[in-house]
Amino acid sequence: MKFIRNCFLAVAAVAMLATPAMAAKTVKWKLAMTWPSTLTPLASPPLQVAKLVKEMSGGSFVIKVEGKEKHKAPLGILDMVKGGQYQMGHSGSYYWKGKDISTIFFTTIPFGMTTAEQYAWFYYDDGMKYMQQVYDRFKVLNFPGGNTGVQMGGWFKKEINSLDDLKGLKMRIPGLAGEVFAKLGVNVTNIPAGELYTSLDRGTIDALEWVGPGMDIKMGFYKVAPYYYTGWHEPASEMQFLINKRAFAKLSAEHKAILITAMKAASADMYYENFAASANAWEQMKTEFPDIKVKTFPLPVLKAMKKATDDLLNSYAAKDPQFKEILESQKAFMKKARQWTIISDYNYIKTTMELDQ
Amino acid sequence: MKFIRNCFLAVAAVAMLATPAMAAKTVKWKLAMTWPSTLTPLASPPLQVAKLVKEMSGGSFVIKVEGKEKHKAPLGILDMVKGGQYQMGHSGSYYWKGKDISTIFFTTIPFGMTTAEQYAWFYYDDGMKYMQQVYDRFKVLNFPGGNTGVQMGGWFKKEINSLDDLKGLKMRIPGLAGEVFAKLGVNVTNIPAGELYTSLDRGTIDALEWVGPGMDIKMGFYKVAPYYYTGWHEPASEMQFLINKRAFAKLSAEHKAILITAMKAASADMYYENFAASANAWEQMKTEFPDIKVKTFPLPVLKAMKKATDDLLNSYAAKDPQFKEILESQKAFMKKARQWTIISDYNYIKTTMELDQ
Repeated sequence: MKFIRNCFLAVAAVAMLATPAMAAKTVKWKLAMTWPSTLTPLASPPLQVAKLVKEMSGGSFVIKVEGKEKHKAPLGILDMVKGGQYQMGHSGSYYWKGKDISTIFFTTIPFGMTTAEQYAWFYYDDGMKYMQQVYDRFKVLNFPGGNTGVQMGGWFKKEINSLDDLKGLKMRIPGLAGEVFAKLGVNVTNIPAGELYTSLDRGTIDALEWVGPGMDIKMGFYKVAPYYYTGWHEPASEMQFLINKRAFAKLSAEHKAILITAMKAASADMYYENFAASANAWEQMKTEFPDIKVKTFPLPVLKAMKKATDDLLNSYAAKDPQFKEILESQKAFMKKARQWTIISDYNYIKTTMELDQ
Repeated sequence: MKFIRNCFLAVAAVAMLATPAMAAKTVKWKLAMTWPSTLTPLASPPLQVAKLVKEMSGGSFVIKVEGKEKHKAPLGILDMVKGGQYQMGHSGSYYWKGKDISTIFFTTIPFGMTTAEQYAWFYYDDGMKYMQQVYDRFKVLNFPGGNTGVQMGGWFKKEINSLDDLKGLKMRIPGLAGEVFAKLGVNVTNIPAGELYTSLDRGTIDALEWVGPGMDIKMGFYKVAPYYYTGWHEPASEMQFLINKRAFAKLSAEHKAILITAMKAASADMYYENFAASANAWEQMKTEFPDIKVKTFPLPVLKAMKKATDDLLNSYAAKDPQFKEILESQKAFMKKARQWTIISDYNYIKTTMELDQ
């Protein structure tokens, strides 16, 4: 009997040794995103993270991605991740400005930083610190989730020649930019993506803002609103990955590292994907849709937008010390970073344009 | 005895089941880089890859990074990876232009693409395809390894007011830009990083090109050559990861995915790191070293540089069909991408500059 017991113990001991890597249950997570599953490049980062995490973990960590067609709550992502129905989410931080106005800093702000400037602030200045601070009260972790670059200023049925042309205009535009337009007399509304074209066609709205040529052209807005304005309000819109804190704490050290690295690689990649899509769509637009009129808002209009933006930011800062602190951090870093952007990328493009003349 | 044998088999069976993940030997690789171990941000991507790979693999894949102070062969990286002394390398593709002129396309070319444009070409156009094609003859795999953004045009002892000021000038500048300067009458040399300051101080050279403010200021060049020119010749210098093909083939699927994802995340991160370093150094320069004179080459000089660049590229293309094909791919993509850069980032910065006036 002693021998049988010893044999049993020997088998058990070897089995136990094998446990950490072998018998460990597959970790199965679910991710809810604001976008329909097919809406690339916005849907690309979560889809790519799921693929990379599975490959890197040898199938021991699997993330099921669900688009809004499944969960029907595109603007419920933060709540669902906080509540634990989903371990992860993919969305835009500024959608939660009603819960905490400081969330806007992790997407983009009007007249704010460019993509390179903002990533430098996130990773080599105070951005990530403030990001975790703001999301701590929701018991979720927040990570950069892919960038669109400069977004276009939107599609308008009529040309905007002065501030008067904005008064009474009905426009779909979300975020702080919506508040800026409201200050300038625009009737601002939000309309789900699926109804945008119809609303514009039927005159429910006179103008709308979406993303950029890579995503806009296929929506067909140009058919009813041919004035396409350059951007000022979302110079570097960053998506977000949300993670339930308790779920993250339960991951092994390897799975944590795998998830964080996958998010970083997939976020960088979305910027490349959207840049290529925009370049291709812009070329297509110039040849196939020459009636689209590309415009920049007149300087007096932009000045009024800038003043309205500053007034709004200052009024939030006066009420909220955390908002004030993050605003000052962004302003200080942007002051330095913008000088470098001007002397490097801006000056380089300017030089090549002069040579082409 | 039968029972003992059964017991032994049971233990052996459990042990065998555990084998793939448990008893698998740790994979140990060595990486040689062109830079000294302390030369961040150039040395950052390989150091970060080593850290991430170890964490993600739970220590089952370990990469030892060796700087040039150890292997003493900064320009022998490709040969050492090809020969298998090192499984991996980190360097700059254009250092191998003597072996194959097409390697320059995977670093940067004068008057070429910006960082965003080039990454879009790599990942969402034909860049990666051509990269593997060119490196196939060396039996190595090549991956993007981090970007510096626009590099500055270099430090000069005297102001450059005309093409005549370039004639007879002694300058340290590598790559195709060196060939361009040579065509304009400059005596071009290459000098190791450690001797740059002394060479400039003693008059062995009259000018030199290094990277950008983030790396240049601490070298002290401004003390002897106060004219600091903006960039035209390296608008988006990409570093490279080299991997021995046979070594890569032996990796497990998990380790392959881990390595590729780590390289992509670390490459993106170097761009952010160098951007932040440049922004901070530029600010420091303006306040602490106001005697530095920031200049852009006069338009006639830039025109001559552009013509010399085009002549060189065309002459290589006439001799080498692969070079011609890649040049045409870059040109076609850049034509589309540049239009988008101008309407998005360039126009945005221009708008904000007008508002600041």
